Amino acid sequence: MFALVLDQSGIKIDKKYPSPECPPGFVRLSVQKAGICSTDIQLIDGLYAFKGVLGHEFVATVIEDNCDSNSNIFPGDVVVGEINIACQRCSRCKQGIRKHCSNRSVIGIRGHDGAFAEEIVLPIENLHRVPRDIDTSALVLTEPLAAVFDILNKVDITPQSTVAIIGDGKIAQLACRVLTQYTAHLTVIGKHQDKLARLPAGIYRQLVDEQIGTEYDLVIECSGSTSGFHSALNIVRPMGKIVIKSTYRKQLSFHVHDLVVNEIEVIGSRCGNFRAALDYLAIHNNSVELLQLIDAEFDLSDAVNAVEYAKRPNTMKVVLNMDSPVYRAARDP
Amino acid sequence: MFALVLDQSGIKIDKKYPSPECPPGFVRLSVQKAGICSTDIQLIDGLYAFKGVLGHEFVATVIEDNCDSNSNIFPGDVVVGEINIACQRCSRCKQGIRKHCSNRSVIGIRGHDGAFAEEIVLPIENLHRVPRDIDTSALVLTEPLAAVFDILNKVDITPQSTVAIIGDGKIAQLACRVLTQYTAHLTVIGKHQDKLARLPAGIYRQLVDEQIGTEYDLVIECSGSTSGFHSALNIVRPMGKIVIKSTYRKQLSFHVHDLVVNEIEVIGSRCGNFRAALDYLAIHNNSVELLQLIDAEFDLSDAVNAVEYAKRPNTMKVVLNMDSPVYRAARDP
Repeated sequence: MFALVLDQSGIKIDKKYPSPECPPGFVRLSVQKAGICSTDIQLIDGLYAFKGVLGHEFVATVIEDNCDSNSNIFPGDVVVGEINIACQRCSRCKQGIRKHCSNRSVIGIRGHDGAFAEEIVLPIENLHRVPRDIDTSALVLTEPLAAVFDILNKVDITPQSTVAIIGDGKIAQLACRVLTQYTAHLTVIGKHQDKLARLPAGIYRQLVDEQIGTEYDLVIECSGSTSGFHSALNIVRPMGKIVIKSTYRKQLSFHVHDLVVNEIEVIGSRCGNFRAALDYLAIHNNSVELLQLIDAEFDLSDAVNAVEYAKRPNTMKVVLNMDSPVYRAARDP
Repeated sequence: MFALVLDQSGIKIDKKYPSPECPPGFVRLSVQKAGICSTDIQLIDGLYAFKGVLGHEFVATVIEDNCDSNSNIFPGDVVVGEINIACQRCSRCKQGIRKHCSNRSVIGIRGHDGAFAEEIVLPIENLHRVPRDIDTSALVLTEPLAAVFDILNKVDITPQSTVAIIGDGKIAQLACRVLTQYTAHLTVIGKHQDKLARLPAGIYRQLVDEQIGTEYDLVIECSGSTSGFHSALNIVRPMGKIVIKSTYRKQLSFHVHDLVVNEIEVIGSRCGNFRAALDYLAIHNNSVELLQLIDAEFDLSDAVNAVEYAKRPNTMKVVLNMDSPVYRAARDP
């Protein structure tokens, strides 16, 4: 099958990558579309050790399953999939925190081939069947939206909460669309006028340099830069909270004194709630505010260029299409 | 009056330091005893800008008050005092978080003379009258004990919680004495065999190098060293919590990746609950386990030597006595 493969020499399209085995408990999926995430760029840049097929944001169609007869997933079902493959046996799995399984693999990130390919296999418990009327491209946003909804698992937000989102990239854009439903006091603080301009109308926004003296109950750090954390520490109120949604290439350095004296809470947040994300998509189905975050779609056969496109400034989501006419022509010449 | 004063040239006993004014709403206290804290040493070492009378852990007797007629504090009452002096007017005071008052002074730390003196003045609302039968030296531990009880304001601890305390100094020693009442699974991890030996019998203890693979629900970082935070991040379980009770002279540097991927919560904790600390002291009144943490008592007139003593390795609490016969002789020759 066609797949975008990362190896020592970088990424390339492999036209004859072997179709994955489908072990017991797994389902074979035909990928429809997949999104390129900043983590993919970091993997390509060698920040982590993964080699194989990239991609962890996708929507796909069920081909077959290798599950027992109680399976409630059927060929032709359209699904999205959670990215952590848990062992089901370790103490963390038994405690119910499967996303922190000690032996986990993560599709397209650690130990399991990802979704930038014609096919992917995933355990049946990772899959969520999706309503037919949600736009396929919007469904590619399920995984990052789920990550945003994890914020609500970590902190309480009330209509009175003063909330700042630091950053203006993909996660910040999704976070503001979600969180504006929970608080009347949301500010997005970014570095890029052109990205801030892509926020929905009515969202209060500031350039980071304009930031003056306000104190927030909650700061969501999505900037991907250590300076974003420093800003967060500056603007959070005493006894306030900072949720970190991004990782940094550099080590973070700061004076703990500020955190202790002001009794700040810093909370790391990773993958999230697919159910909440799908409910959101079902309501905001075909919402212009979401779809306008998708800047381009490329055929899988053109994935190397798609990655280059995704790296350009002021690019939000780039989607790979596994089933376009162009791709089919490349696949079946 | 006699006072231990910090100025540009360091600390010295001033035998003629002016007695403090007692403004409206304040109470004049005759200090009985006061404890030397690591923060005092940091102030002497110039880490913060404070100049004046040091000392913020004390027990005292009420001399007079300058309060309205509803005052419920009377001359002769023995009291301990909270250290933050709030303006009562700023938005934080109005929200009820007076310890984070924007205009606060802090006795012996910021803008208000401290307790290493014959007299101190404090707002009446800072004072807690204490039972007569609690040992006066033990009462000096009220303030650091209150800081320890703040941990319980920040996190829930159940009998099943696995808790590690990192550090073996004063705060770690107090924290283990308190927290062992709340969980059956407490471990203290320290660097110093001689300090670990001062933990109460029955407390499970480890040298930091012996630490192997256990994962804790909650880690209390009291080491005062950035390496303590790195240890905390290593031993806390995914979705676990780290409470930081100490500050560091150096900047803290670490890879945020670990905090985000493991979804760790880091919580700064400062001053705490005097009521809970006094309740604890009332129950553990004259407890050998507490009093054995007091290594030495010095007369106020000998406070410079007391500070030197407090800096020695394996020293826990050093207490200044403002009313010893030796001190009285020095004061009234």
